[in-house]
Amino acid sequence: MDVSKEDELCLISIREALKVVRGKWSILVLTLLSLGPQRFNQMRRNLDHISIKSLTDVLHHLEQHEVINRQVFPTRPVTVEYTLTDKGRAYIPVLRELRIWGENWGEHPKLG
Amino acid sequence: MDVSKEDELCLISIREALKVVRGKWSILVLTLLSLGPQRFNQMRRNLDHISIKSLTDVLHHLEQHEVINRQVFPTRPVTVEYTLTDKGRAYIPVLRELRIWGENWGEHPKLG
Repeated sequence: MDVSKEDELCLISIREALKVVRGKWSILVLTLLSLGPQRFNQMRRNLDHISIKSLTDVLHHLEQHEVINRQVFPTRPVTVEYTLTDKGRAYIPVLRELRIWGENWGEHPKLG
Repeated sequence: MDVSKEDELCLISIREALKVVRGKWSILVLTLLSLGPQRFNQMRRNLDHISIKSLTDVLHHLEQHEVINRQVFPTRPVTVEYTLTDKGRAYIPVLRELRIWGENWGEHPKLG
């Protein structure tokens, strides 16, 4: 079937969402930040295997789209901490449903 | 902060989900199929710009992961129709939240 006007609006909204949060690393970064503030190196450690370039690019993209906030503290050495903005926190229901789906339908058995 | 055991389980579930439904086209294909069954060329038309190769790859990946079902009808020419499986229908709550987020936080103003 071809899509109706109403269905077209649904596709438009989802495309809009995908312009901002796109790809695995974006989602994993938001998941981490939904658990609490993170510094760059903590994120790298918590997302084992991500390259410095990939993490930098993802953080830059999310910051530009105002999903995350980058705060610099004048310590020595300087501390840079990332947190979710209101827009980022509004994404948490998506992550919650994704987690439930992964738990129920992922390939690994549930742990714990 | 470093992640706790509980948080680690959250990340694992989300990674699991991302192994199956990854990337923009997967999500858009599932969105279309959540609206009703679709044939290959209808999907191409409804997802303007997707190449035959990309759509074929995405459909193959989703079928292999049992998220969508491919059914062949013995018409002339043969009709091939795609629908969501139970696993695919279970993903609809993710799409619903993604749509809400896109409506509220997307860059385009709401239409209609």
